[in-house]
Amino acid sequence: MSGPTTIAAPQTDRAALRSEIRTAVLTLCLLAALLAPIVSHAGEMLRGTGDLAIVVERADGKVMIVDTTANRALAEVGGLGDLSHASAVYSRDGRFAYVFGRDGGLSKVDLLTASLVARTVQAGNSIGGAISQDGRLVAVSNYTPGGVKVFDAATLDLVADIPAQYAPGKLSKVIGLVDAPGQRFVFSLWDAGEIWLADLHDPAAPKVEKFTGIGTNPYDALITPDGRYYIAGLFGEDGLALLDLWHPEQGVRRILAEYGKGDAKLPVYKMPHLEGWAVAGTQAFVPAVGRHEVLVIDTLTWRQVDRIAVHGQPVFVMARPDGRQIWVNFAVPDNDTVQVLDAERHAIVHTLKPGPGVLHMEFEPRGEEVWVSVRDADQVQVFDTGTFEQRAVLPASKPSGIFMSARAHRIGL
Amino acid sequence: MSGPTTIAAPQTDRAALRSEIRTAVLTLCLLAALLAPIVSHAGEMLRGTGDLAIVVERADGKVMIVDTTANRALAEVGGLGDLSHASAVYSRDGRFAYVFGRDGGLSKVDLLTASLVARTVQAGNSIGGAISQDGRLVAVSNYTPGGVKVFDAATLDLVADIPAQYAPGKLSKVIGLVDAPGQRFVFSLWDAGEIWLADLHDPAAPKVEKFTGIGTNPYDALITPDGRYYIAGLFGEDGLALLDLWHPEQGVRRILAEYGKGDAKLPVYKMPHLEGWAVAGTQAFVPAVGRHEVLVIDTLTWRQVDRIAVHGQPVFVMARPDGRQIWVNFAVPDNDTVQVLDAERHAIVHTLKPGPGVLHMEFEPRGEEVWVSVRDADQVQVFDTGTFEQRAVLPASKPSGIFMSARAHRIGL
Repeated sequence: MSGPTTIAAPQTDRAALRSEIRTAVLTLCLLAALLAPIVSHAGEMLRGTGDLAIVVERADGKVMIVDTTANRALAEVGGLGDLSHASAVYSRDGRFAYVFGRDGGLSKVDLLTASLVARTVQAGNSIGGAISQDGRLVAVSNYTPGGVKVFDAATLDLVADIPAQYAPGKLSKVIGLVDAPGQRFVFSLWDAGEIWLADLHDPAAPKVEKFTGIGTNPYDALITPDGRYYIAGLFGEDGLALLDLWHPEQGVRRILAEYGKGDAKLPVYKMPHLEGWAVAGTQAFVPAVGRHEVLVIDTLTWRQVDRIAVHGQPVFVMARPDGRQIWVNFAVPDNDTVQVLDAERHAIVHTLKPGPGVLHMEFEPRGEEVWVSVRDADQVQVFDTGTFEQRAVLPASKPSGIFMSARAHRIGL
Repeated sequence: MSGPTTIAAPQTDRAALRSEIRTAVLTLCLLAALLAPIVSHAGEMLRGTGDLAIVVERADGKVMIVDTTANRALAEVGGLGDLSHASAVYSRDGRFAYVFGRDGGLSKVDLLTASLVARTVQAGNSIGGAISQDGRLVAVSNYTPGGVKVFDAATLDLVADIPAQYAPGKLSKVIGLVDAPGQRFVFSLWDAGEIWLADLHDPAAPKVEKFTGIGTNPYDALITPDGRYYIAGLFGEDGLALLDLWHPEQGVRRILAEYGKGDAKLPVYKMPHLEGWAVAGTQAFVPAVGRHEVLVIDTLTWRQVDRIAVHGQPVFVMARPDGRQIWVNFAVPDNDTVQVLDAERHAIVHTLKPGPGVLHMEFEPRGEEVWVSVRDADQVQVFDTGTFEQRAVLPASKPSGIFMSARAHRIGL
């Protein structure tokens, strides 16, 4: 009966193996069930993106993702390189932030998975960027080598290169890059004193219109919220260069002839950013250069109509989305203060002291709250714009720029 | 040598079983990998919400969720009741649409899970709604019983009830409800000729300021994009009632004294919606009543400065977000046509024939494309606003209103 005995062994063996299989199957089923949500939700959030924002934590090469409804931090994403003077634009769905670093790095951050999904170090030294009207192209303006590079917003593959060559072998630093309606980008050439208007309908063959002799050393620029007027500030002389994009055939004209350092009463700590202009209704509120003043410009005539005395040298002058209030922060030594102006009466209505190193402010899209980065307090503070009460304080490591996803829907932001 | 033979069998058996185990494990791993996204994403979409929209399919009580980047339909959500004259507002994260039906139904639709997450039939007959500046309150204006009901945006629980009682025992129909900065709602009383301004900072105790004698039978109203001017149209007399919300103490004043049926050259098919006004820069483009004309109003003086002859009686007059173009659709029998006006030259630049029953138009937030519902063709058509080329056609069942999630970030929408 050796037969049955020798057969019995394999039967036991089979039973054991079957049991093994059963255990393995059960374990795997359990694992699958347990892992399913983790696998697909690893760091992911099924949520709307309309109330998200990023805060640049410049010292750590990170951005903090925040929820502007609950006023709380959600996650951090690192590995973004040198984020001094970093800025950001958003994909049209509000899910991805494109962060432009000073080191030429362009990083694509997914706000839903809190991850860095693409990154390219596209130049030696960059100063900012913009996203095309249709959201498919991201452009970066560079100092070294001087020019604009354009990337596919999905992949960050290079799709167009526009060297800022203004004379044989000479490349200019590029500043003041913004998007404009009609799938266009507009930017200025520091070394050449030129404004270029580039139509990117066909990225393989950008059509570039050049405006020369616009003034010495344009150092920054802005586009009005309707995308009509492009205005460049001049470092080398007073006045501003204005291009009406509805009428490029009229060329660039000079406005506000006295605006600049020639008008300064005090040493100029730094030239104020032009993107810090506030356009509200038919008024533009503009930081004076080297003066404790905010200038009021009539945008129908582009003439100065008033000056408002403020606490220090203004840096950012921002309009609440309804245009009723203007919020101002200041250069050192007054950078612990924020003032609120009434846009109609041109008077100070409130002064806040958020703390040392107020670097940036961003309004929630319908204006009920404003977010303020207070670098040297390592805080982001949120204020009610009606009562000026502090609504929240979020710890953040040396916060600078704050960029809300609602920028996805705005021209020039 | 039976031993080796009998042992050989179980070894083969073992090998076969091990292979079975391996196959089972592999299959399960594959299944787990495949199922993971399905299990946790059953009907859900991990995606940004900034490029989503809903299209009202009025005959079926449904909305279609569409992606305005890919220009395609994603899903449908039904069970929303009577959607004739339906409108919608968005949660501040862009995830939820609040749909106001004519039957008094208020429905909360989740665009990410494509589901109806809450619904209340809050009155017998409603005409529209609004969401508060902070996104926490949804208000509905009702004919029967006349008044405004305010709901918690998260739960749709009733949090405030404002009966439009203008005399003992008399409730007015309410029309022209909009949100305004400062957590306020503004609306008009058809039967009473009044405008009410309600501060909902404390929903348990709304503060209501009443403006009486504003004119006979206000039938619709609008608020300017900056949230400053509330303008009500009058059915019972000519002219419009204007309230400057920066200066409610100045009361309501009459503007455009000739505007209305008294000025009509043709039978008035229907009074044009005031929400169909386009405010672009300092101009408002306004459908004339009973005339084949679009009127141009200077918003600094609120006086009429021009009239533009168009194809039919205008219904919606919409500004492209950059204010350069004005798109117009028409009442029967001209409702197969759309015309595009130049906002500067006040001239027709293009005429389109999308097909029978053009009911509504909505621009993508940066204006590159416009979505048009063509009811009797059962289509939504998408056009490039630069070239006027048709970019996409989506089948839809009797489409009417189109509402993009970018409205979440706009005052008064």
